[in-house]
Amino acid sequence: MIHPIPPGTRDVLPDEMRELRRLNRALIEVFEARGYGEVATPAIEYDEVLARGDGPATAGAYRFFDESGDLLALRSDMTVPIARLVSSRYAEAEMPLRLCYLASSYRAVRPQRGQMREFVQAGVELIGAPAPGGTVEVIEVLEAALDAAGLDRAVIGLGDSDLYRQLLTEFGVEGEARDSILARLASHDLVGLEQELREVEGISDEQCATCVALSQLRGGREVLEQARSMLGGAVARATARLQATYDALEERGVVDRVQIDLGLLLDLGYYSGAILEVYDPALGHILGGGGRYDELMKRFGIDQPAAGFALYLERVHVAQMEEESRRERAPS
Amino acid sequence: MIHPIPPGTRDVLPDEMRELRRLNRALIEVFEARGYGEVATPAIEYDEVLARGDGPATAGAYRFFDESGDLLALRSDMTVPIARLVSSRYAEAEMPLRLCYLASSYRAVRPQRGQMREFVQAGVELIGAPAPGGTVEVIEVLEAALDAAGLDRAVIGLGDSDLYRQLLTEFGVEGEARDSILARLASHDLVGLEQELREVEGISDEQCATCVALSQLRGGREVLEQARSMLGGAVARATARLQATYDALEERGVVDRVQIDLGLLLDLGYYSGAILEVYDPALGHILGGGGRYDELMKRFGIDQPAAGFALYLERVHVAQMEEESRRERAPS
Repeated sequence: MIHPIPPGTRDVLPDEMRELRRLNRALIEVFEARGYGEVATPAIEYDEVLARGDGPATAGAYRFFDESGDLLALRSDMTVPIARLVSSRYAEAEMPLRLCYLASSYRAVRPQRGQMREFVQAGVELIGAPAPGGTVEVIEVLEAALDAAGLDRAVIGLGDSDLYRQLLTEFGVEGEARDSILARLASHDLVGLEQELREVEGISDEQCATCVALSQLRGGREVLEQARSMLGGAVARATARLQATYDALEERGVVDRVQIDLGLLLDLGYYSGAILEVYDPALGHILGGGGRYDELMKRFGIDQPAAGFALYLERVHVAQMEEESRRERAPS
Repeated sequence: MIHPIPPGTRDVLPDEMRELRRLNRALIEVFEARGYGEVATPAIEYDEVLARGDGPATAGAYRFFDESGDLLALRSDMTVPIARLVSSRYAEAEMPLRLCYLASSYRAVRPQRGQMREFVQAGVELIGAPAPGGTVEVIEVLEAALDAAGLDRAVIGLGDSDLYRQLLTEFGVEGEARDSILARLASHDLVGLEQELREVEGISDEQCATCVALSQLRGGREVLEQARSMLGGAVARATARLQATYDALEERGVVDRVQIDLGLLLDLGYYSGAILEVYDPALGHILGGGGRYDELMKRFGIDQPAAGFALYLERVHVAQMEEESRRERAPS
């Protein structure tokens, strides 16, 4: 007899569970070896506390009233709860502060689009370390985590979350049109993006072309050269920020996996500056993401820059299995 | 700045987290070494699926509607989700089936009474092994888990969940009076119990005295002798069941930690026959519980006897710390 579970949730049976536990341990060991202490926070928080961090993004959260009439919500990520934790427990701590986690989060998504309602993430938060140094440290930890998982081919996309927001402001695109364009960018919908752009009044063909061309710029240092020839102060500022991060990564010898991706835009509201997306080219899956959230801590009363990343544990596991079977098929 | 978290939930900082991880690993290793495979299930399930297992006890669950209008609930334990999992994924499996878990559950409790809304449990479920053999196996695993946690002094109370239900039926106590009496027993409220009993019409003084006296019988084999002299077929039947389990435990040489407790009654609706409560005499804390739930699997279409236990991870950790500092204070 089959008693269903909600779409976007899953059961894990012992064989997979053993592998997930092994992966968990490997990731936490990487984080701890680099000084990141693991924390846990409640899956249930006051809705107003989560909303303080997420802004409109909490519209995607599950909410319910408790027996005292308070509105609670299931957390939709760990970055906001950790910002809350830092303000309550580490306000006087020496910075930078390094924390990591392995935890389930919940999003009220449309499961028919293959999204998970419940998902486990492993990640780190580095609080009190500004760009570009803090960004570089986070990328180094991320690379070590991918190495520990055996994902030799995973790519880290490096973009800038302010690029399009500022560019659209510069081009005078506001309101709904702006939101629609940003949504198309976040979902990598190039056809939709061109369409939205063409419908905006007052935007020139060249401006339109800049937006489309930028969204397709992806690669190494040469991408920054190409971008510099394009319109707009926003492009120049983002390029300078990316250049500084890329130079520092190169200096540390950890640039190999990193691909500059000017088309990158994440839909979480709290990012500013550098953003990251981890991508497995073999599977075509996004394995995780992250970036800087220099403004988020302020919403909790702590004026500190911050950055972090989160890997989707189950997707990393699938990629790991795929890599292992690939290596078995083609022994060196 | 303090941004509160809901009462009955907590943050865990790195020092404690490292210890909890170590305890987690030790417990899962004990379970796996005895053939129990770890599983995970969603924290969110359809309310009607959880209600099928719990009966009225799901009144304590957090519920909310999803975007399709379905009523979802946060699980309030792992036994019901695992019964659901077994019916969906292991209906044709060879029995007995041994599963274990380490998972958070949620109850809409009154936190001012010190109860947790969110709590982590480590436990096992043994499906397809009848009493007394299955009960004895579960108690052996529980003892090994307590040993692994270093809780030398923890006591396992062994009672019978049918004893009072059947005895009250025999005495003609029905409806609200019956529920109130069972609630007083479950909360170990002796004064309230006597009061409730005295208010029942038609119950004799001797019957009343039997109920009170039974609820205080606690100890070794002698307790069964004492009980046998008491009124009621229900007492005779429960005593015979307890005797069989106790004899088997003695034969396996694992009876030392076990204390027969005729006053034991757990408030989860699905128990039948043997019930367990783990108690730390030093701390005065209940560390966990369990028992047989021979009827639960039928509600999910599987006619198999079953038993299991769950330990509250954080309370076990507190007891573990207490034991360690006790050993340090009094070195042998």
